[in-house]
Amino acid sequence: MTNVLITIQYDGTGYSGWQRQPHKKTVQGEIEKALSKLCKQPIKINGTSRTDAGVHAYGQAASFAGDFEIPVERIKLAVNGLLPKDIYILSVEEVNDDFHARFSAKGKTYQYKIICTHERDVFLRNYYYNIDKDLNVSAMREAAKCFIGTQDFATFMSSGSKVYNTVRTIYSLDIIEEELDTKVKSIKEKVVTIEITGDSFLYNMVRIISRTLVEVGLEKLKPEDIPFIIKAKKRSLARLIAPPGGLYLNKVYFDETEIKERII
Amino acid sequence: MTNVLITIQYDGTGYSGWQRQPHKKTVQGEIEKALSKLCKQPIKINGTSRTDAGVHAYGQAASFAGDFEIPVERIKLAVNGLLPKDIYILSVEEVNDDFHARFSAKGKTYQYKIICTHERDVFLRNYYYNIDKDLNVSAMREAAKCFIGTQDFATFMSSGSKVYNTVRTIYSLDIIEEELDTKVKSIKEKVVTIEITGDSFLYNMVRIISRTLVEVGLEKLKPEDIPFIIKAKKRSLARLIAPPGGLYLNKVYFDETEIKERII
Repeated sequence: MTNVLITIQYDGTGYSGWQRQPHKKTVQGEIEKALSKLCKQPIKINGTSRTDAGVHAYGQAASFAGDFEIPVERIKLAVNGLLPKDIYILSVEEVNDDFHARFSAKGKTYQYKIICTHERDVFLRNYYYNIDKDLNVSAMREAAKCFIGTQDFATFMSSGSKVYNTVRTIYSLDIIEEELDTKVKSIKEKVVTIEITGDSFLYNMVRIISRTLVEVGLEKLKPEDIPFIIKAKKRSLARLIAPPGGLYLNKVYFDETEIKERII
Repeated sequence: MTNVLITIQYDGTGYSGWQRQPHKKTVQGEIEKALSKLCKQPIKINGTSRTDAGVHAYGQAASFAGDFEIPVERIKLAVNGLLPKDIYILSVEEVNDDFHARFSAKGKTYQYKIICTHERDVFLRNYYYNIDKDLNVSAMREAAKCFIGTQDFATFMSSGSKVYNTVRTIYSLDIIEEELDTKVKSIKEKVVTIEITGDSFLYNMVRIISRTLVEVGLEKLKPEDIPFIIKAKKRSLARLIAPPGGLYLNKVYFDETEIKERII
């Protein structure tokens, strides 16, 4: 048996999310189809994160095991030739037998991208959350600090999840402000990226936290409201959710030291 | 009668090109549908350029006339609310009765974007021509100079066009080299943009010239071959065509002085 870890980039726009579903186009489904063809046997992969429909990945991870003839170092080129153009395997590596992309993961970084513009940029429609007002970034940074640490994040979980322990650790939550050169009338627009690293995340947690931070940026919530909203453990206090197109799974960590480097 | 000029941005990925066609999703078709609804009468628009399937626009122009109740200054907001997310009207302005977006145009600028990378970036697949080799940009610049001026460009016209006079004027042809921060393994990739301004263009002329310049960049053709290829007036000497996704209609000029400013 060869156990393999693959790192995957995808544009989630055209997919009903990561997870395999009958009669639906999913990222996992497409990768399994390509790998099964290549390995001449049915391959099932385990992804680290079951991203929702429309959510993107710069570095999703997945593992699979099998007895196949193709050497591991040849898989990358061969599988990319079989995959649709919106999925790309960045790397393929052999791992220990006990490795499992979901259970061996020590943490993840997500990015949530927002663009503040009155003029819609058609090329960004599936990749940024478009807000037609300015955001108060320093208020968002103040609010962001309140999320750091090991806390019960029940407020920030969508219903429908079967998770009972809602305690999670957020290692870092940065608000990055940049300017983007849009082609709409050649104006520069403000892009605000929320970058969040944690041990693991509840269902829709990143999108609910992002939308809550946007409310702070819009000055509808104050940074000092956040500790109260967290402690309440009530979704009703953070009802809104940011749209999927702004969300990117950036990186999966399998090594504790790598996460620690991030936090410092 | 009110005569109106609109400037349009669109992502051409999902469209069978600009021109209205029965049973096909086209940019012109979508805009006419939205404007007809808004103006409560059938509206037909005249676009400056009939861009092909997959070709994008930062600044396509179109005009239409009618007796409608909605004030011109309200059209922009209202029509954008009715249009699909991949088409956006940048501006709407009243123009003289004798204005026609196609016949009044004095020139156009197109951009053709190429990315040189071994690693495919899934987010760029519909927006750049991906070449997995490096390009010799200084050779491309040498070759580009040969296209400038008033010449017979019959070599660079796809068949199927009913145009008999194949003389056109190219005012400028620049090769711009930039670095793009891709998310694939966080590497910077070389982007080469071909920017071409001319009075008007033959069918597929920009894509055929772009592909010919790529051949020079790949050192399969020499810059000194270009004058011969132009003078031959034979498409067989420039058979290849660059894919549509890399092409953008940047700007339409209705004012001679604006073009002259570009050339200097």
